[in-house]
Amino acid sequence: MPVSVPALPSGVDPAWLPPEVFRPLGSRRTLISGTGPVVDTVHGEVACACAQFGGQVVRTARVQGASYDLVLELGEDGDPDGLRDEGFALVRADGVTRVTAAGQAGLLYGLFHLVRLGEAAFEGERAREVHRPALALRMLDHWDNMAVHPVMGQVERGYASGSLFWHDGLARGSRDELERVRWYGRLLAACGVNAVAVNNVNVHETEAHLLTDRIGEVAAIADALRPYGIRTHLSVSFAAPVVLGGLPTADPLHESVPDWWARTTGRVYAAIPDFGGYVVKADSEGQPGPFTYGRSHADGANMLAAALTPYGGTVHWRAFVYDHRQDWRDRSTDRARAAYDHFAPLDGEFAPNAVLQVKHGPMDFQTREPISPVIGAMPNTRLAVEIQATQEYTGQQRHVCWLGPMWSEALRFRPEGEEEQSVGELARGGGLVAVSNAGDDPFWTGHPLAQANLYTVGRLAWQPDAEPRAVLDEWIGMTFVPAQSADPERLRSGLHAVLDGSWRTYEKYTAPLGVGFMVQPGHHYGPSVDGYEYSPWGTYHFADRDGVGVDRSRATGTGFAGQYAKPWAEVYETPETCPDELLLFFHHVPYGHVLHSGETVIQHIYDTHFDGVGEVEEARRVWAGLEDLVDPARHARAAKRYEEQLRSACEWRDQINTYFFRKSGVPDARGRRIH
Amino acid sequence: MPVSVPALPSGVDPAWLPPEVFRPLGSRRTLISGTGPVVDTVHGEVACACAQFGGQVVRTARVQGASYDLVLELGEDGDPDGLRDEGFALVRADGVTRVTAAGQAGLLYGLFHLVRLGEAAFEGERAREVHRPALALRMLDHWDNMAVHPVMGQVERGYASGSLFWHDGLARGSRDELERVRWYGRLLAACGVNAVAVNNVNVHETEAHLLTDRIGEVAAIADALRPYGIRTHLSVSFAAPVVLGGLPTADPLHESVPDWWARTTGRVYAAIPDFGGYVVKADSEGQPGPFTYGRSHADGANMLAAALTPYGGTVHWRAFVYDHRQDWRDRSTDRARAAYDHFAPLDGEFAPNAVLQVKHGPMDFQTREPISPVIGAMPNTRLAVEIQATQEYTGQQRHVCWLGPMWSEALRFRPEGEEEQSVGELARGGGLVAVSNAGDDPFWTGHPLAQANLYTVGRLAWQPDAEPRAVLDEWIGMTFVPAQSADPERLRSGLHAVLDGSWRTYEKYTAPLGVGFMVQPGHHYGPSVDGYEYSPWGTYHFADRDGVGVDRSRATGTGFAGQYAKPWAEVYETPETCPDELLLFFHHVPYGHVLHSGETVIQHIYDTHFDGVGEVEEARRVWAGLEDLVDPARHARAAKRYEEQLRSACEWRDQINTYFFRKSGVPDARGRRIH
Repeated sequence: MPVSVPALPSGVDPAWLPPEVFRPLGSRRTLISGTGPVVDTVHGEVACACAQFGGQVVRTARVQGASYDLVLELGEDGDPDGLRDEGFALVRADGVTRVTAAGQAGLLYGLFHLVRLGEAAFEGERAREVHRPALALRMLDHWDNMAVHPVMGQVERGYASGSLFWHDGLARGSRDELERVRWYGRLLAACGVNAVAVNNVNVHETEAHLLTDRIGEVAAIADALRPYGIRTHLSVSFAAPVVLGGLPTADPLHESVPDWWARTTGRVYAAIPDFGGYVVKADSEGQPGPFTYGRSHADGANMLAAALTPYGGTVHWRAFVYDHRQDWRDRSTDRARAAYDHFAPLDGEFAPNAVLQVKHGPMDFQTREPISPVIGAMPNTRLAVEIQATQEYTGQQRHVCWLGPMWSEALRFRPEGEEEQSVGELARGGGLVAVSNAGDDPFWTGHPLAQANLYTVGRLAWQPDAEPRAVLDEWIGMTFVPAQSADPERLRSGLHAVLDGSWRTYEKYTAPLGVGFMVQPGHHYGPSVDGYEYSPWGTYHFADRDGVGVDRSRATGTGFAGQYAKPWAEVYETPETCPDELLLFFHHVPYGHVLHSGETVIQHIYDTHFDGVGEVEEARRVWAGLEDLVDPARHARAAKRYEEQLRSACEWRDQINTYFFRKSGVPDARGRRIH
Repeated sequence: MPVSVPALPSGVDPAWLPPEVFRPLGSRRTLISGTGPVVDTVHGEVACACAQFGGQVVRTARVQGASYDLVLELGEDGDPDGLRDEGFALVRADGVTRVTAAGQAGLLYGLFHLVRLGEAAFEGERAREVHRPALALRMLDHWDNMAVHPVMGQVERGYASGSLFWHDGLARGSRDELERVRWYGRLLAACGVNAVAVNNVNVHETEAHLLTDRIGEVAAIADALRPYGIRTHLSVSFAAPVVLGGLPTADPLHESVPDWWARTTGRVYAAIPDFGGYVVKADSEGQPGPFTYGRSHADGANMLAAALTPYGGTVHWRAFVYDHRQDWRDRSTDRARAAYDHFAPLDGEFAPNAVLQVKHGPMDFQTREPISPVIGAMPNTRLAVEIQATQEYTGQQRHVCWLGPMWSEALRFRPEGEEEQSVGELARGGGLVAVSNAGDDPFWTGHPLAQANLYTVGRLAWQPDAEPRAVLDEWIGMTFVPAQSADPERLRSGLHAVLDGSWRTYEKYTAPLGVGFMVQPGHHYGPSVDGYEYSPWGTYHFADRDGVGVDRSRATGTGFAGQYAKPWAEVYETPETCPDELLLFFHHVPYGHVLHSGETVIQHIYDTHFDGVGEVEEARRVWAGLEDLVDPARHARAAKRYEEQLRSACEWRDQINTYFFRKSGVPDARGRRIH
C-alpha cells in the first residue's frame, strides 16, 4: 500500500521539493517491486507524482515482463554489491531506468537521486553506477527546547522562528503540525539525512522528562519521521537518575545508576523500537557529567552505551568540554586545547556503540577555525564531526552565508598529512552531525537562501568529498527549478553569484584572520570587538597598541599548535608558515606584519572590511535583479534580509576598522573613511 | 483616637526605627493637643512607645495645667512663625519640652525630630528653634512594575528584591503586605519624605490601567501611606487617551484629549482625594510623547497640569529626553546637550502646577557628572532635581556606596556663580525627587548599609545644605543605637569609616575622571570599557592609543560647556581650568596630560584603581571587626556583599588598567601588576 505524501501546510515553502521536480518521474510508467514500510513511502511518492503529471505506477512482488520506463526494485539475490541498507545501483538500458537497492532506505535514496537527475534520468543509456553513503550516520541535532527558555527561547541559537517539534512546553500534535514534521522528514530524506535528535543538548528540567514519563511525545515524532528512513535520537541529562529517578547519585560506577539507565532505556525502546540513541553534553557549560563523581568521560559514555547495546542504539558523547569560568588574566590556559586534553588520552577506551562527537574546530563554530586536533588523534575511537547549520556566528540567517565551502574544506582536511585520511574518512565511524537551522518559519530556515545550508549538510554527509558548488547547483536546480524558468541561465548564475562566495564575503567584513569571537556577548549577533575580551569564556584576541592575536605556538605560546600531527604542528608553529586566514588564531603579531598576500595585517583588515561590504552591496544588487524569476514571497523575504545584512556589514566594517585604527594609529593606505 | 503603629512583619529589619530609639520618648509623660488623622498617628506613636518603656500619654483638645515632660501641640493662634503645614517649633524650658506645629504633618515631623535627638531632647534648656523643610516636595519615585517585565523584572533597576507595592501583576493586598507599606511610610516620614510615586516612569500596558479601571489599587496604597503624611503620585502614559480611552489621538491640542484627561483625573480624585499628581516620561527611550503630534513638551505638560488644577495636583514632567538611536560615528551629536536643547527654550511656558523634573547630571546618574545646565537655565520654571538612590551605576547595592556627599555637592553647587542660588535653592519650586532603592527585601534595600542612602534622601530634601556626614551620623545613631552598644565609639567610628568615603572609593576603582559609562551594557553592573562605545546610546569615551575623553568645549568640541552660565562655561572650557574629576567629561586629552594633582592621566588611572581596591579591602576588614557590635543578620548580609564588592572591584581595577595599558603602552610608574 502506498503511504500518502504529506500535505504541505498552507503558506509553507516547499524548499527543494516543489511539485515540478517530480514531473520527469511523474510522467513515466514505473514499476515498484519490494515490500516494507519505506517501500510504501516510495510507492506513495511515485503515485503522487503520477497523479500530478500523468504517469502510471504498478506495485508487484516480483518484476514481470511488461514494459516500464522505470523500475524501482529491492534486490532479490542477496547484496552482491554491498549496498547494505542505504545504497542503491542505477542503470539505464533499452529505454528502462532501473534502481536496485538491497534495503528499503536504499530505494528511497535512489528515488530522490532520480528526482535530482530530472529528465536526464530517462535519456540515453547510463552505465551501472553504485551509490552508497560514505557515512552511515548523517544526523541533525535540534537545539530545540520543549518549554520556552527564558534566555534562549524555544530554539537555542534558532533563527527560524519556533520549533518544528515543540511549542510552549508540549510536543506538536495537531494534524497540520505532524504533517509538517513528516514533510521535514521528506526534505531530509531527499538530501540524505537519516537521524534526528529532537531536543537541545542543554537538557533543562522539562526536557529531562522526555526520557521517561514523556517518551510518548518523542514516539509521536519518531512515527512521523520513520517513513522517510529517519531514526530519532534524544538528548538526555547525565543527572537523569537523580533528577528523574530519585537516586542519590548519577555516578556511572555506582551500581544503581547503570541499572537505572538499563531499565529506563528498555522502556524507551518499548515505545520506539528503532530509537537511535542518546546525545549527551556532559561537564560542559553548566551541564552535569561524570567529573562530578571523579569519573572519566569514557566511564560516563560507556555506561550509557551499555544500556543501549541490547537494542542496537548509540550514544553520542559530545567532546565540547572546557572551562567556561576562565580568568581572562591567565594567558596560559587555552580553551582551544581543552577537547584534546580531555579526550585524546581516552582513545581506545570508548565502547563500540559510543561515538565521540567533536566540533570541527577547537573553539565554537567561528567563521574560520583550524580543524580540531582531536579528530586526528583518536584512531581507536568512533568519531562524529559536528558542524553548525544554524548560523549562530555566521549571520544568524539574516546574512547570506552558504557554509558548503567551509564544511567541505573541513571534511577534506587531512590531519595527519597529505597521504593520510581526510576528516571525512576519519568520521566514518561516527558520522557527520549538524546543528539544524530549521524551524517553523514558513521558509523553514528564516532566510530562504539558508535552506542551501540544510541541503548541503545532507549531501556532504552522504559524500564528504563532493564538490560543494555541485551540491549547491543541485539545490538550485531543485529549489528554483530553472528548467521551468523564463531565463534559466540568468537565474542559475545569479544564485551562484550570491551564494558561492558568501562565506568568504562574511569572513571579510567580520573578525579578521581567524581571530574569532568579536561578537556581541550573549546573542552573538553583530560586532563587539572587546565583547568577550575580559569575559570568563576563554575567547580572547589580546589586541593592544602594537599587535593582535593569540600565541598558540609551542615555542612561546599555549602549545596548542603542538596538539597537531607533524605536518600541521610545524605549519601552524610559526607566522611564516601559518596560512594567512588562521594567522591570528595561532599567533600574536604586530600590525605591520606582512602576510603571504603581501599586505600588512592592519591594511588587510581595512581592505577586507571595505571589500566585504562592497560584495554585500553587489549581492544585494544581483538578488534584486532576479525579482522577475523568483517566487515573490521568497524574493521579498530575502530582499528584506539583504537590507539588514548590508546595515550589519557596514556596522562590522566601521567598528572593526575604527577599533584597530584607534589602537594601531596606522591610517588606511588608501585613504578611505575610518571613524 | 490613636492610630496603632504598624506591626513590623516577621523577619523584616526595622531600619532606622528600632524600638530602642523610642525609649527616651516612651519613658516620659506626654501631652498631645490637637485633632486630625495625622495627630492620631502621632498619638499612636507616643502611646506605642509608652507601652514599651513605661511612659504616659494624654490627649486633650486644650493643654491644661498638669505637669508633663513633653507637650506636642497644634498651635491655636494662627501661624505666626510661618510653620505652614510641615514646620514645627521646639523649645525646652522648666523641664518641659514643647513641640508646636501649625499643621498636623508638622507635629509628626516634630515627633521624629525628638526621636533623633534622643535623651538630649529632655535634658537642660533649649532655646526656641523653628524647623521648616526647605523643599515643599520631597519625593520618592518607585520604578516598580506591576507585572514582572521580561527584561527589567518587577522593579526596574531594583536591587532589593521585589516591589513593596506590587507583586506579579497585582497590588499587594494582604494584611502583612499592607502593614509593611505602612511601615515604609513610617520610615519615610521619619526622614522627611512626603510624596511617593508608586509605579515605574516606563509605563507598560498593565500599569497604564492604574490610571483608570485599577485606580482602586492605587487608592489602597494611598490609604496605607496617608497616616504618615505621604501623598501618592502615579506615573502615567502620555498615550493613555489612545491606549485606555479609545481615542484616535493623544495630541494635547486636540479637544478630545484634554477633555479625556479632565474626566479621568476627576475619577482619580474621587478615589484618592489627596492624590499628588502625575509623573510623566514622554518622548524618551521609547515612551510616547507630544513630539508624536508636533507639540512641545510645554503643551504636553500644561494639558496634564490643567486636568490636575481643580484638585491641587501637580504634574512632574521629566526632562530626560534625548536621542537613544544615536550613531556612534557622529561626534557632533552630544547626548549631554539634549535636555538643555529641548527644555531651556521653553522656560516660562510651563503652567504653575507643572514641575520640570531634571536629573542632577546631564547624562544618567553616573558616579561623577557635572550639574545639569538645565538647572541654572530656567528661572521661570518650577524645577525638581532628580537623584537616584537605587544604585544602578554605583554598585547596585552589592557595593557600599553612600551617595550623601555626591548629592550634597550637587545641591550646594551654584550654577550661576558663587554669589547666586544653589541647586538646592533653585529646586524650591519643584523639590527633590529620588528614585527609590527600597523593595521587599528583609533589609529594605538589599545591602543593609544602603539604607543610609534612603535616609539621606529625605534629610537632604528637608535641608539641602545639611552636612551629609551629620545626616549619616543621625542615621547611625538611630539604626545602630550606639547608646545601647557595648562599645559605642568603636561602632560609630567603624560605621563612619566604611561609609563616609565609600562614594569616592567607588569612583576610584570604576570609570576614571568623569568619563562614565564603562559598564556592562543592559544590566550596568561591572566593567566593560567599550561596552557602550559603539552603541546607539550616546555614551562614548573615544579612547585611542593617544588619549581619552569627550571634547565638549565650545572651541573644538560639542559646545556643551557653553550651555553653562559664565563662571562654569569658562571653567569647563579648557583642560587647564576644568576640575580633575570632570576632566574626561569635558575634554579629550593625551594620556600624558598632567592633572592639577601633578599626576599624568594614565598614572592617575593606575593609582586610583589600585588605591580603590585597597580601600575596599580596608572597609571589609573594618566591617569584619564590628561583628560583635552589629545585629548578626545585618552583619552577615553586609559581610557577604563585601566579598562580592571586593571581587568586583578587582575586576574593575584589572579591566580598566589592562585596557588603558594595552592602548597607551605606558607602564605603571610604580611597577604593579597589570595584566
